[in-house]
Amino acid sequence: MNDLLDFGRRALASQPFSKLVGAEITRLEPGFAELRLPLSDQLKQQHGFAHGGVVSYLADNALTFAGGSKLAVPCVTLEMKINYIRPGMGEALVARAEVLNSGRSQAVVRCDVFAVDAGGEKLCAAAQGTIAVLPQKEG
Amino acid sequence: MNDLLDFGRRALASQPFSKLVGAEITRLEPGFAELRLPLSDQLKQQHGFAHGGVVSYLADNALTFAGGSKLAVPCVTLEMKINYIRPGMGEALVARAEVLNSGRSQAVVRCDVFAVDAGGEKLCAAAQGTIAVLPQKEG
Amino acid sequence: MNDLLDFGRRALASQPFSKLVGAEITRLEPGFAELRLPLSDQLKQQHGFAHGGVVSYLADNALTFAGGSKLAVPCVTLEMKINYIRPGMGEALVARAEVLNSGRSQAVVRCDVFAVDAGGEKLCAAAQGTIAVLPQKEG
Amino acid sequence: MNDLLDFGRRALASQPFSKLVGAEITRLEPGFAELRLPLSDQLKQQHGFAHGGVVSYLADNALTFAGGSKLAVPCVTLEMKINYIRPGMGEALVARAEVLNSGRSQAVVRCDVFAVDAGGEKLCAAAQGTIAVLPQKEG
Repeated sequence: MNDLLDFGRRALASQPFSKLVGAEITRLEPGFAELRLPLSDQLKQQHGFAHGGVVSYLADNALTFAGGSKLAVPCVTLEMKINYIRPGMGEALVARAEVLNSGRSQAVVRCDVFAVDAGGEKLCAAAQGTIAVLPQKEG
Repeated sequence: MNDLLDFGRRALASQPFSKLVGAEITRLEPGFAELRLPLSDQLKQQHGFAHGGVVSYLADNALTFAGGSKLAVPCVTLEMKINYIRPGMGEALVARAEVLNSGRSQAVVRCDVFAVDAGGEKLCAAAQGTIAVLPQKEG
Repeated sequence: MNDLLDFGRRALASQPFSKLVGAEITRLEPGFAELRLPLSDQLKQQHGFAHGGVVSYLADNALTFAGGSKLAVPCVTLEMKINYIRPGMGEALVARAEVLNSGRSQAVVRCDVFAVDAGGEKLCAAAQGTIAVLPQKEG
Repeated sequence: MNDLLDFGRRALASQPFSKLVGAEITRLEPGFAELRLPLSDQLKQQHGFAHGGVVSYLADNALTFAGGSKLAVPCVTLEMKINYIRPGMGEALVARAEVLNSGRSQAVVRCDVFAVDAGGEKLCAAAQGTIAVLPQKEG
């Protein structure tokens, strides 16, 4: 386990909401993050699929970890866009986020979310957003 | 309690994830929805604020309920964009979503998410998205 | 004519592309901008409506002027999202942008674009984006 | 020249706005489109870069052509999100759009816009959006 992934695991473990839903971080490299979320029943909506908010949570978090791997920590998501492509079904969701560009204080990041089952992976959602170092968050 | 709100409460109660996080629907009228989410500790990230994924869940769900109030049910969110403006702190988050335009099968909806405490409400996030009747969801 | 609007007119006149398409700025107040674009034939696509790129240009520019009215100049659009709602037809497009929140270096802004003809205005597109002071633009 | 590219060239030539700005379509394959826009002075803003509206026009159009290559024609952009990454400078902008998923009536598409000069290509903007067959456009 590399140091960055070790750092990511501790960061994820410090997020009560990520513990509540059961997210895991499986890869963290400079400019890249992979998160995995086993699909328990409590993460679903009324049609039996992962709730859209669960998919967007995973995308949001993967974007932030990928951005944070290039910037500095702590980081926040400034904004995000997500297209839902297929229902989130199967054993787990896997989100892979990759930094397109990073500067001193912000990074533009893309993320694909896949629904995983025994048959393989299917693209479930596509996201894109801006990550910023925390002091940039104004208001 | 009007019939539409009553319907909305049953729909929300049928979403395991919405029960897990504790979301409530407080208004549902044709073209408008208001959801409320008491901010328990388990909904936070490591800095003590509501996790971005919680804010985007609430926005996503409010968009869907508002869109669904004009279209037909069941509905899904096709896509969504969210700008995070202030940390989600205080007693609760309140999301208000309003339909900008609706057709036979899709609606464009905007949503504001507010952080609520004793001092009042502060804008926490702004979202915009497309809601579609479920058979439209392709793949 | 107020000083801010006067400033905006000079800024718009200094943009070759805005002159090419014929955009006018009709209101500029702290946190608000209104741009107008007479719909000449050269701004259309093959179906006779305003090209989507024309609508997004007008939204983008209105977002930037509104954001710039609260921040400082020069400003740029960091990111933007637009939902196209109705074809852009009629005499002109009018874009109205309003700042939702502004900090030291960034502003979150919403914009409505209307198609205008003798019968009035119809909502043509809805946009939302982030404006930043120019030195923030990294890369 | 393949038939699809030939079709694309005629479609682009039928858009008055695309002729005004001088856009060219250089590749069109099922699920992929590449557009090129020589950067004349009239496409710039006051800082000497391509106007953001020009970049978003090119992204929007590339998204539509890529989506249209998988769906049917005529198509429209339902919605789009764009992150501006670097100023659009140099000889030309090149937009490459790729379909992530397509169904009967809609496609989700991503697009990268590059600034091109003698030294090569640099990522200038990243976009993502939904393309729909024209009758889907409601209102």
